[in-house]
Amino acid sequence: MSHGDVDPEVEMTSPHWMHRDAGSRPRTHTFWRLERWRSSMLLLVGVALCDLAPGCSATDTDIALDAKATLNHRIQSLDLLVFVFLLALTVLTIWLFKHHRVSWLHETGLAVIYGLIVGAIIRYAGTSATLVHMQVEPQGVPTYSDKLPPDTLWFRYPVNQTNGTKQPELVHTYAYVFRGQVHDVDENEIDLKATFDPEVFFNIILPPIIFYAGYSLKKKYFFRNLGAILTFAIVGTTLSAFLIGGFMYGCVKLMPKYLSSSFTFLDSLYFGALISPTDPLTILAIFNDLRVDVNLYALVLGESVLNDAVAIVLSGAIQNYGEHYSSTGEFETTAFLRSLSDFFSIFLLSLMIGAAMGCLTALMTKFTRVRDFPLLESALFVLMSYSTFLLAEATELTGVVAVLFCGICQAHYTYNNLSEDSRQRTKQIFELLNFLAENFIFSYIGVSMFTFPKHHFDAGFIITAFICAAIGRAVNVYPLSWLLNIKRKPKISSNFQHMLFFAGLRGAMSFALAIRNTVSDERQTMLTATSLIVIFTVVIQGGAANFLLNWLKIPVGVDDETEQLNNYQVHSVYNSMDNSHPQTDVEGGGVNRGKMRLSGGTDSNLDTPVDGPNGSLGGASGGRRRNSHEKAILARIWGNFDTKYMKPLLTHSRPTLLETLPVCCNPIARLLTTTQQLTQDGSEFRRVDSDSDICIDNDTGNGLSQDATGAGPGTGTVGVGVGRRNSLSRSVQLNEAHHLASEISLVTNNFM
Amino acid sequence: MSHGDVDPEVEMTSPHWMHRDAGSRPRTHTFWRLERWRSSMLLLVGVALCDLAPGCSATDTDIALDAKATLNHRIQSLDLLVFVFLLALTVLTIWLFKHHRVSWLHETGLAVIYGLIVGAIIRYAGTSATLVHMQVEPQGVPTYSDKLPPDTLWFRYPVNQTNGTKQPELVHTYAYVFRGQVHDVDENEIDLKATFDPEVFFNIILPPIIFYAGYSLKKKYFFRNLGAILTFAIVGTTLSAFLIGGFMYGCVKLMPKYLSSSFTFLDSLYFGALISPTDPLTILAIFNDLRVDVNLYALVLGESVLNDAVAIVLSGAIQNYGEHYSSTGEFETTAFLRSLSDFFSIFLLSLMIGAAMGCLTALMTKFTRVRDFPLLESALFVLMSYSTFLLAEATELTGVVAVLFCGICQAHYTYNNLSEDSRQRTKQIFELLNFLAENFIFSYIGVSMFTFPKHHFDAGFIITAFICAAIGRAVNVYPLSWLLNIKRKPKISSNFQHMLFFAGLRGAMSFALAIRNTVSDERQTMLTATSLIVIFTVVIQGGAANFLLNWLKIPVGVDDETEQLNNYQVHSVYNSMDNSHPQTDVEGGGVNRGKMRLSGGTDSNLDTPVDGPNGSLGGASGGRRRNSHEKAILARIWGNFDTKYMKPLLTHSRPTLLETLPVCCNPIARLLTTTQQLTQDGSEFRRVDSDSDICIDNDTGNGLSQDATGAGPGTGTVGVGVGRRNSLSRSVQLNEAHHLASEISLVTNNFM
Repeated sequence: MSHGDVDPEVEMTSPHWMHRDAGSRPRTHTFWRLERWRSSMLLLVGVALCDLAPGCSATDTDIALDAKATLNHRIQSLDLLVFVFLLALTVLTIWLFKHHRVSWLHETGLAVIYGLIVGAIIRYAGTSATLVHMQVEPQGVPTYSDKLPPDTLWFRYPVNQTNGTKQPELVHTYAYVFRGQVHDVDENEIDLKATFDPEVFFNIILPPIIFYAGYSLKKKYFFRNLGAILTFAIVGTTLSAFLIGGFMYGCVKLMPKYLSSSFTFLDSLYFGALISPTDPLTILAIFNDLRVDVNLYALVLGESVLNDAVAIVLSGAIQNYGEHYSSTGEFETTAFLRSLSDFFSIFLLSLMIGAAMGCLTALMTKFTRVRDFPLLESALFVLMSYSTFLLAEATELTGVVAVLFCGICQAHYTYNNLSEDSRQRTKQIFELLNFLAENFIFSYIGVSMFTFPKHHFDAGFIITAFICAAIGRAVNVYPLSWLLNIKRKPKISSNFQHMLFFAGLRGAMSFALAIRNTVSDERQTMLTATSLIVIFTVVIQGGAANFLLNWLKIPVGVDDETEQLNNYQVHSVYNSMDNSHPQTDVEGGGVNRGKMRLSGGTDSNLDTPVDGPNGSLGGASGGRRRNSHEKAILARIWGNFDTKYMKPLLTHSRPTLLETLPVCCNPIARLLTTTQQLTQDGSEFRRVDSDSDICIDNDTGNGLSQDATGAGPGTGTVGVGVGRRNSLSRSVQLNEAHHLASEISLVTNNFM
Repeated sequence: MSHGDVDPEVEMTSPHWMHRDAGSRPRTHTFWRLERWRSSMLLLVGVALCDLAPGCSATDTDIALDAKATLNHRIQSLDLLVFVFLLALTVLTIWLFKHHRVSWLHETGLAVIYGLIVGAIIRYAGTSATLVHMQVEPQGVPTYSDKLPPDTLWFRYPVNQTNGTKQPELVHTYAYVFRGQVHDVDENEIDLKATFDPEVFFNIILPPIIFYAGYSLKKKYFFRNLGAILTFAIVGTTLSAFLIGGFMYGCVKLMPKYLSSSFTFLDSLYFGALISPTDPLTILAIFNDLRVDVNLYALVLGESVLNDAVAIVLSGAIQNYGEHYSSTGEFETTAFLRSLSDFFSIFLLSLMIGAAMGCLTALMTKFTRVRDFPLLESALFVLMSYSTFLLAEATELTGVVAVLFCGICQAHYTYNNLSEDSRQRTKQIFELLNFLAENFIFSYIGVSMFTFPKHHFDAGFIITAFICAAIGRAVNVYPLSWLLNIKRKPKISSNFQHMLFFAGLRGAMSFALAIRNTVSDERQTMLTATSLIVIFTVVIQGGAANFLLNWLKIPVGVDDETEQLNNYQVHSVYNSMDNSHPQTDVEGGGVNRGKMRLSGGTDSNLDTPVDGPNGSLGGASGGRRRNSHEKAILARIWGNFDTKYMKPLLTHSRPTLLETLPVCCNPIARLLTTTQQLTQDGSEFRRVDSDSDICIDNDTGNGLSQDATGAGPGTGTVGVGVGRRNSLSRSVQLNEAHHLASEISLVTNNFM
């Protein structure tokens, strides 16, 4: 803002609660510069100091400063207002699309497109302004004894009095707060001002999204596919990051331009890490609408949620390698190992903090009767979840990762202790927060394409990045699926693999990581490429997902137990008849028409069950041998432990610790068992605990009664969730399905 | 933070996602300084610029800066974490208190007390630190051509390279951002750092509280007592502000100390304005728990919600008078008139913006079928409500006032259009937000008593302030009640007056206004006095409210229609028997025992209905003359207009605009009437719209059928809400109550 703009009228401008000459001035200033949001936020917290000295000795400068503070407050409000209106518009359009069953464009895609339009308007209709800066030097003899520049500068500035010049000269001292290094001293001043602060994403936008992802995870399918999910998320993402990094580095070095000289291998590795995580939001919105096959859903959700966590830690480790461990920039073994240990320790410690806080909340809700006051209970739940994020950040871990695992634990344990009211409330609150945050970030991606001043378009790099992103995803999906299929019983069919490949949209995390650091040209080029990849994948791939699902014959229309059962029966009947292509090919791109759509097109999809190497690892309890190969070892071990110790400790579930702990621990066990736990009816409880079946086998016919009181460990939760392996296996008979019908009708999937 | 503290280890400290040497350093720095929250928030948005230049040429300074940014992030997380834990602790204790039916301390009082304890711990256990500042001057010849100091200063600082001294000297340029004036150059540097930013209250904490107050207002009682509420809120608050201001000024001038010289009349007036608004939170939490008489509830809630709005505008006008309009500080007529017009125009414009946005939301939800997707609907609702605040702030109006009236409109119109799911969700979300914000602010009031560095204790001033606050409240309540009682039919009994006086707790708004400006000694003295008054009234008065309610024999145990009916019958029976003191004096301080408690103790409470001057203003429709004096003119006019035009336009209510508008407007009316509106059953609708009775008369016996189709205007909502004038009137007969029982059982009060 050039100070010449401030006409004499402004001197009389009042603080922001006063309504004077509204709407006239702001247009001449940075009215529409959305990327100034950050600096506006800064002003939001910084404005207060600008108020006047008491009494009536206001100088010209005081009044002008006051006016400027008011103006800044207005600009900040307007900036936010534009985004809020944009979101409201998106909401209305989403409704319109849903109302008319438009399936070729989804809500996140819509948010991006609206963002692009508004961004273009702002770019070409708004005016810009520059910050005035002044070069200063220390007063007197400079003493640079410290390693750090001072926190604040005090600057004496002569102000002239309003009433003529009574005093000869009045000098005010103003404080200036440290902000950061100016990298390009010759460049336009706008740079400093317009740097969008990515920390807003990491501290405000991402946490609710990630927490909700964990909280709404359908745990049974998640745990059932745990091995595959972990492989895809951890191995796959790392692999993809390094491959993309290597590829990009090679390609960039072949480019004739300036990039090839300044682009380091670490830069491309960082790019690999940030472009590898896939986005859960869009694709799952689509999957949810279509009620796609639950196992595919679990794979995609589990992977994309976890690889966000992996990517943020990985990119941190790569950044650190460059900044702290490596002194030369070349490969160094010690630096590499330190980064590697960072990666694992931060990931695991964040996971543990998140899980611990989740369990703590479960204990709190179990051993108090706070559930009698749902509002208090919900407040406690929200506060504990938020404190997980803060705790992780305060201990220099990754809050986003902690919040993810906290969400999973909250859903797995705490949720069962909550009152009905709190369950609803917490679900609804986080659903709404997630929706708003998600749409905000995608709107912002669109807007920033036009308004963010640090974009750096480089066609070669962008094309290479697109190709590399696709290759990276392919490398993630196909070889790992092949590897997994060696041991995995319900194989991942090739159609599923194609869908997994196609579901690799890039989204919020990639963008947030890319915009976190835009100091150098290389980083700016990366940001531009990332933004474009995100926009392309969300709009185009997201829009096409529907058609591809049809084309690949992925079962859709699968939702809760009952519907699944239907589907299942159809599936089983179908399987018992014919293994060739189904006749239900008549599609029209419509939504929710697919109850008859089956996945039986390929052979790998219909493998006969083979007793794999895991088949005999039946755990301690008897009578659970058959079909146990359907569960991964990991899932089984965890499931056993969970049912025997964790659930009894943290929830009101049966069996109690009195039954599962050794006799010597009885006093402690008694202490940790609530009366409610002892007195409740087993079957009644089962209705509440919808994910108790993560540790069950499919053997329902051999006398494990539903009433688990006094039975062996691990048996209390047998009997539910059997009919949900649809389309990944055909090993269950139709009559078994019938036999299950009555049981399943008991189970209401309380969550989601 | 003294830079000498940074030991060589720090050079290797990594960004905040890295977990290294955790927990060792922060204690030596500003670990516990909660008042640094603001500057931490500043760092939250400012940290990003501190990241390193790309490549590996990190200097000592770069690394130290990086470490410092990380440290600041951790401190900020810790600060917030302390508050979140404090809130969680409060929640658990509240539960414990509720569980054991402790009534002598309420949740807000609890939050304050915990805040005090934590504040004391922080004060005496934590360490403090100072910001390093450096005096600078312009490089070269200074040119002070502008009225304003520059936005940023660029400061060249020599940094030393890590690897020995390869280069002779490397100089970085750092940017410093304008922050504010340094008022006391000689004082400790901590001052600048520790100024808590009140804008956080005004932009983040207060809006959800105030919105929820509007959204949860029981509108029928609010509108029924509109005249009294407006009188108390607007006239009363202004009167009280000026009286307190005058009193304080006189008292302070009598004090021998330095205050008397610097304390201006405007200062004391400002104090009067900020101490006048009463707090709705605590007292209403108590009233809610006890289900106190609805009319008293409406009076207290309506008054305290509105006087918050009045006070914020009033204090703004007073501030403006001093700063902009008055050049001498003495009384000036023009300046006074300008302030006065500011006051009214800002209040009314804010009100209109709020109401307009509420109505816009109502239109959106009425004419779209967005209700088919509750999540979208809730999102739209939240976004529109938030944009009201932003819109008002962007146009230099008062966002808090706008949000209040938006909330009222949302509850009055939009709520009726929402789907059941959205109703629940929005209620629950805002309830939770309100709860958290409210407890946060009271915790903070407690904490800041110890940690805020700008407290200024002055025993004389504090005692005077306490006395003045009480006098101001008395002047507000008693004379105005007397005035109102002249015309008012259901008189405000003297017991109710005592309770109104006693319910004058001071709270969030007073504190926020006091902490907004703490530049001068006088303002700091005011802050201290205000904090103490808030703490005292919330803890002591809030705790004693229960006993006083018993002692004054205010009816409690009144809640929704059914219970009210019970109460009502008892009341009527009682009234028909005896007007002397009731025999139900046996109390025990217990909660919810009061269904038999009556208000019949005093004469003024039991006035026989007299046809007041309003008695014949029956509106356009016939058959509504008797008892119409029970409604204020204002409420009646508004009610008529509301039923005839606003509700039909904005909701799906009957009668439709087709019936209420003149025939010539039929085409427009048809356009604005939905099919749902035309086809629905009148009685079915009534069940939904719980506050349709704001415009009814009490005459139910004269043939106005429930089916309002085709009937005259204003009759569609007759028949509900009749039995709710309990304890303020005795004019309804027992058999009438019986006659109403069946109707009332139809009505479910959907809201709250």
